[in-house]
Amino acid sequence: MTRHYLDWNATTPVRPEARAAMIEAMDLAGNPSSVHTEGRAARMLLERSREQLAAALGAEGADIVFTSGTTEAATMVLAGRGIRCAAVEHSAVKVWCDPVLPVDGEGIVTVDDPARASLQLANNETGVIQDLPQGLDSSDLTQAFGKIPFAFNWLGVTAGFVSAHKLGGPKGVGALILKKGTDMPALIRGGGQEQGRRAGTENLVGIAGFAAAASAAQKELEAGLWDEVAARRDALEARLLDIAPTARIAGKNARRLPNTTCILTSGWKGETQVMQMDLAGFAVSAGSACSSGKIRASGALQAMGFSDGEAQSAIRISISPAVGRDEVNRFADAWESAYSRWRDRNGQAGRLAAGRTRDDRDHRS
Amino acid sequence: MTRHYLDWNATTPVRPEARAAMIEAMDLAGNPSSVHTEGRAARMLLERSREQLAAALGAEGADIVFTSGTTEAATMVLAGRGIRCAAVEHSAVKVWCDPVLPVDGEGIVTVDDPARASLQLANNETGVIQDLPQGLDSSDLTQAFGKIPFAFNWLGVTAGFVSAHKLGGPKGVGALILKKGTDMPALIRGGGQEQGRRAGTENLVGIAGFAAAASAAQKELEAGLWDEVAARRDALEARLLDIAPTARIAGKNARRLPNTTCILTSGWKGETQVMQMDLAGFAVSAGSACSSGKIRASGALQAMGFSDGEAQSAIRISISPAVGRDEVNRFADAWESAYSRWRDRNGQAGRLAAGRTRDDRDHRS
Repeated sequence: MTRHYLDWNATTPVRPEARAAMIEAMDLAGNPSSVHTEGRAARMLLERSREQLAAALGAEGADIVFTSGTTEAATMVLAGRGIRCAAVEHSAVKVWCDPVLPVDGEGIVTVDDPARASLQLANNETGVIQDLPQGLDSSDLTQAFGKIPFAFNWLGVTAGFVSAHKLGGPKGVGALILKKGTDMPALIRGGGQEQGRRAGTENLVGIAGFAAAASAAQKELEAGLWDEVAARRDALEARLLDIAPTARIAGKNARRLPNTTCILTSGWKGETQVMQMDLAGFAVSAGSACSSGKIRASGALQAMGFSDGEAQSAIRISISPAVGRDEVNRFADAWESAYSRWRDRNGQAGRLAAGRTRDDRDHRS
Repeated sequence: MTRHYLDWNATTPVRPEARAAMIEAMDLAGNPSSVHTEGRAARMLLERSREQLAAALGAEGADIVFTSGTTEAATMVLAGRGIRCAAVEHSAVKVWCDPVLPVDGEGIVTVDDPARASLQLANNETGVIQDLPQGLDSSDLTQAFGKIPFAFNWLGVTAGFVSAHKLGGPKGVGALILKKGTDMPALIRGGGQEQGRRAGTENLVGIAGFAAAASAAQKELEAGLWDEVAARRDALEARLLDIAPTARIAGKNARRLPNTTCILTSGWKGETQVMQMDLAGFAVSAGSACSSGKIRASGALQAMGFSDGEAQSAIRISISPAVGRDEVNRFADAWESAYSRWRDRNGQAGRLAAGRTRDDRDHRS
């Protein structure tokens, strides 16, 4: 069966440009810390990758520390500092922060004291984009990077977190972006790599892949390919709401990433939908991949005022320029038949449940 | 000019088996935490890699936590615990420990309280192998893994650290090996990956490469290829000592890795030798790669009783089954001519210095 991957916010296929850069990097035998020819060649690739990533991020002149991903970068910046955030943050941020910042029904966060707050640029589950106040302590840029244009140097944040695997790079590599000269004690210590900020021999293959992917993503963005993504997403949402008029799209009236749809169909478990769609050939998700498997409603959706039951009915469809209109339509077809089956069973079950309740009441009375 | 890579303890070229496994892993689009088909395929590769690594390590049934390398694994285990070690440890261990354990002239460490000590299985600079006492808190297995046979389950240590790039895997991936069920709070927190011990989407490409490399290294070891390495190393050392009879091999009388020679030629700076050998086409190192560039004598050699001046004259030649007898001989030839030039200059400088001293003395008297 042909598979259709519509879970690009969870992770993305490796881009051809990243793949080529990674294979090329495998041929460099040297350790970037070695002073001999082989070491210097590895070091040169490392530093060229750093510049390439800075250019894609609009972070020229900022300090870029390569990490194993956003989770490590967030730990470096946030652990033990009592920074405040909203409940819509990814668990990598939320685990270290005090999730007290208010969130409105569209997912928009209010920040009173930016210097003590961390705020994501875009949400992984809903795609909702925040208007970042100047002077933020830090921002999780992971989901926004490569999907909407921004320049780190213009965001006015001290620290930013990014991951390669959300924009066509490999999993397990990311970066911490810091305003130039920001003091940052190392979490992982030992050798003097990354200017003493992150010890350990660098993941050169992954870093080369990250830089190549970021460049390619940036070019794709500049070429306007993500505007077409937004058009396909809008068409998808119109169709889904046409199929299920009582369903709701989280953050529908907010500015959102062009590729993300989070639809709630109250009473129809998201986990069930994900399994049914998987059997039909489509990869989508219920909540973020990191918390998949846990049967627990999304904290982000609850923070937006959705009930537990509503939040548990959420599924996320996240696409990209590689997902064509036809694939999106086929998904809507598959979802439509699953929805019809659920509605039919539900109608029957509803009637049965209503009957049982009546019976119970009769019995008790 | 043909290059000869004789710095295998710094890092190794990626093995063909690892390369193939990495390229294959690039085709898996899913996130190992996703429940759909693509996610489960990624998860299956992750768990298969874990089993493959366990088999190569003799760590069946132990807990394997994938990390970004030994440095991260050591930080997870050692940070803030006041564990004791010897000054011969790699900086990744030493940075967190109290380096008080005694070291003898051959590099052998005495441990009085194993439960409070971390001790490497083999040294990166000298290749000296320790006889690990039962009940050690932890052991850096990085340099030993793939070069000498051992089974984690028989070492009697609670925690072991390994890195892929020392045995033909990619840089930037490693593992923490724990006795089954050992309590280990996460350093990097967020998602529930690695059974809650290490959050963040896994470096799947790197992990697949690590597992494939470890398997291949294990097979190579079992096939006896490292016995031939020892023979070549012995021949090399005999020749070097024949060229420079006053030079010394660190740990010569200790049990050592079969591939490592650390030679001290008092008065002839190691950094200079490394540069001269590099110009002649050979990659070797002075001290560990992580501290390369720093003009500072090796703490490991000083702990063995070598003077500052002696330690600064050290170079390390580290080979592998891929380095043939002919390459080793060519290195000895190149080192011989550099040594002769140095001795001649040094002899002259020595005479000049001696002359000057005499003149000074004459002048003063």
